[in-house]
Amino acid sequence: MYRMYDIITKKKHGEPLTEGEIRFFVEGYTNGTIPHEQASALCMAICFRGMTMEETAILTDAMASSGDRVDLSAFGDLSVDKHSTGGVGDKTTLILAPLVASLGGKVAKMSGRGLGHTGGTVDKLESIPGYRTSLSPEEFFEISNRVGVCVVGQSGVLAPADKKLYALRDVTATVDCMPLIASSIMSKKLAGGAKSIVLDVKCGSGAFMKTPEAAAELADAMVQVGQACGRNVRALITNMDVPLGTHIGNALEVKEAVSVLRGEQQDDLYRVCIALASNMLSLCMGWSVEEAEEKCIEAIRDGRAYAKFLEWIAAQGGDTAVLEDLSLLPVSPVCYALTSKEEGYLAHMETDGIGTAACLLGAGRAKKEDVIDPAAGIVLCAKVGDYVKAGQTLAYLHTRDKALLPAAERAFLASLTYSSAKPAELPLIFTR
Amino acid sequence: MYRMYDIITKKKHGEPLTEGEIRFFVEGYTNGTIPHEQASALCMAICFRGMTMEETAILTDAMASSGDRVDLSAFGDLSVDKHSTGGVGDKTTLILAPLVASLGGKVAKMSGRGLGHTGGTVDKLESIPGYRTSLSPEEFFEISNRVGVCVVGQSGVLAPADKKLYALRDVTATVDCMPLIASSIMSKKLAGGAKSIVLDVKCGSGAFMKTPEAAAELADAMVQVGQACGRNVRALITNMDVPLGTHIGNALEVKEAVSVLRGEQQDDLYRVCIALASNMLSLCMGWSVEEAEEKCIEAIRDGRAYAKFLEWIAAQGGDTAVLEDLSLLPVSPVCYALTSKEEGYLAHMETDGIGTAACLLGAGRAKKEDVIDPAAGIVLCAKVGDYVKAGQTLAYLHTRDKALLPAAERAFLASLTYSSAKPAELPLIFTR
Repeated sequence: MYRMYDIITKKKHGEPLTEGEIRFFVEGYTNGTIPHEQASALCMAICFRGMTMEETAILTDAMASSGDRVDLSAFGDLSVDKHSTGGVGDKTTLILAPLVASLGGKVAKMSGRGLGHTGGTVDKLESIPGYRTSLSPEEFFEISNRVGVCVVGQSGVLAPADKKLYALRDVTATVDCMPLIASSIMSKKLAGGAKSIVLDVKCGSGAFMKTPEAAAELADAMVQVGQACGRNVRALITNMDVPLGTHIGNALEVKEAVSVLRGEQQDDLYRVCIALASNMLSLCMGWSVEEAEEKCIEAIRDGRAYAKFLEWIAAQGGDTAVLEDLSLLPVSPVCYALTSKEEGYLAHMETDGIGTAACLLGAGRAKKEDVIDPAAGIVLCAKVGDYVKAGQTLAYLHTRDKALLPAAERAFLASLTYSSAKPAELPLIFTR
Repeated sequence: MYRMYDIITKKKHGEPLTEGEIRFFVEGYTNGTIPHEQASALCMAICFRGMTMEETAILTDAMASSGDRVDLSAFGDLSVDKHSTGGVGDKTTLILAPLVASLGGKVAKMSGRGLGHTGGTVDKLESIPGYRTSLSPEEFFEISNRVGVCVVGQSGVLAPADKKLYALRDVTATVDCMPLIASSIMSKKLAGGAKSIVLDVKCGSGAFMKTPEAAAELADAMVQVGQACGRNVRALITNMDVPLGTHIGNALEVKEAVSVLRGEQQDDLYRVCIALASNMLSLCMGWSVEEAEEKCIEAIRDGRAYAKFLEWIAAQGGDTAVLEDLSLLPVSPVCYALTSKEEGYLAHMETDGIGTAACLLGAGRAKKEDVIDPAAGIVLCAKVGDYVKAGQTLAYLHTRDKALLPAAERAFLASLTYSSAKPAELPLIFTR
């Protein structure tokens, strides 16, 4: 028998834990026989001492096994998932999922809501009238199989150990620890069942990882953990130093996703989506990335990706008329043109601050109970590198209530840095 | 306002905490607004990052202030206390307290019971029929003032913050941390109210600190903390590599204490008591240690120390007839002569193991609810450095039940190491 006291002591002294010890901890903490204070002490010791890749893989698998696991084996090698470490204006799933499905991949995905500046993918999809995020397992598999793409809210209990441990880490200042971050993310992905997984690790001012180096370390850890657990895993490190695309907010992001899928927009958002989708297809179809990239560009150009999007939304009960006529999506009564108070190059946008402004307008949740306003958000008219004059419109703020504007405007303006020289352009995709 | 999350993060990054932050933590944890898991994370971060002397002193004072504080200011500079970090066969308080009082010091002491191989001082005193360990505050002060010595069990709530934090550290593997140990001990001493404090820091196989270096580090920390909090503090580092004296067990230790107070025994126990008492008197009376030592030796030789002992026990209701005739103390029905199975020099006694043997005979508590057998224990007939033959009696085991003997004998014998050469003698008192 194991004793939690001994496990904490061992890690405190920097010794690696055995498989038995790690599984004892995960099971005991999940079922409540190990109290919070012992789990917390272990997490803090792990922050200082780290974990080997082997320990991290065992922790990940133990957390993935702590609840339900989605079985996608019926799709063979075709099932593929994407995980993004989160950012402002990140609507890539809405674009990727139908794009990959239009080329043969099976994207059967459970997606979270979560706290944040804007809603999660499921919240974004719910701004489409009729879209059903709760399906029976039979419906979920039938749509995934027939259409090739299905995105629902989390049902059942995926990785409850991770949920409990994350809530603990969140109050004990032990979030910021590579093996714990990697195992937390990967445990949910493993439970999600996809054979292949592409990780979009964001870095920059709007991401958890502030530098490409930190992002690369996390990406390496996650790839190794996923591979150790028998999955095909690849990671891209992408720039979240500015918001992705121009639209931030739930219905606004659906609008922008439609625009990309229709081939009307070939900006940073489009490029990130092509890169992620071609890596997903490369893993699940066995194509080279270059080959997959050409096919993706073609599928958008010839309308297959957009057709797949309409088919998917319709399959889940969504009203595709609003996608064909985007003016039918939820619209805010207030649309305020926010103007620049200064002149010069936009040198930097503190992406977190832009996200906060969107949240203040009603686009996100500060608490779990908060209700999201699907129409609220921000449309950017200028991004880093643009030269702006005083009085020029920087963004449109969409909200249901004028009273929410001043705080949002202050947060937005405080996020901007101007300079007299044009700032150097940062790469959009750092490494694969 | 402070947030516990920020305090944990700060310490995790190795930054010193402010007075406000430390007091916020101690108050919040004591009153339950800060949960165990946050306190546990902070303790683990402190284990890795340490605390400055200033932080440790603030933590100590905050914990001392978390409950009742005994006010001994009426005794001016005369109040003096002793703290021992604990060991096997440590009956020094029984000897020191009347010895110091017989020479003018005021020893008004609250003493714990605690878990351990044998009982605490209060348990030992309770083996004297009639001795009352619960007194009203008025009685406590009256006896301390009139007799110069009074020892009671802890009443009221001394340093509840420390009690709660210690219980937490005990299950989270964060006991073993210098600033936390120092502040735990010193917070109770500060709350105890004495102006002067002598610390008996034990080192060796029967002590928490295994080496003189570790003991010196703890002693330094405690002295500095006590001085920063306005007390006269001095520390001695004494050997606990073998049990102190020859008697282990509650009534047995009273018997040995009487023997030392009567001047009948001038062994290691006697020498440690003289050293501690003369340092106590040096602090509270302003004498040099050498001068104090001569007075101590004299007070034992001429019977003043023993007379004070009788006066003290009588004042607290104890039957002094059993002290004048020690055969009236509780006696075990079983007294087993444990013999050596080998021949050679006794090279080492694992003191913890000897203590475990005493506990197995009934002399201590493994759980809080356990009832101590006052008569149970061990009388050593040989100590480290003695040459013993096979079949020679090593110790007498006293117990109420023969069935307890085999496990105790095994534990005792397993603690012994023999050698063919006489082992080097270790100093009894390492440093002051």
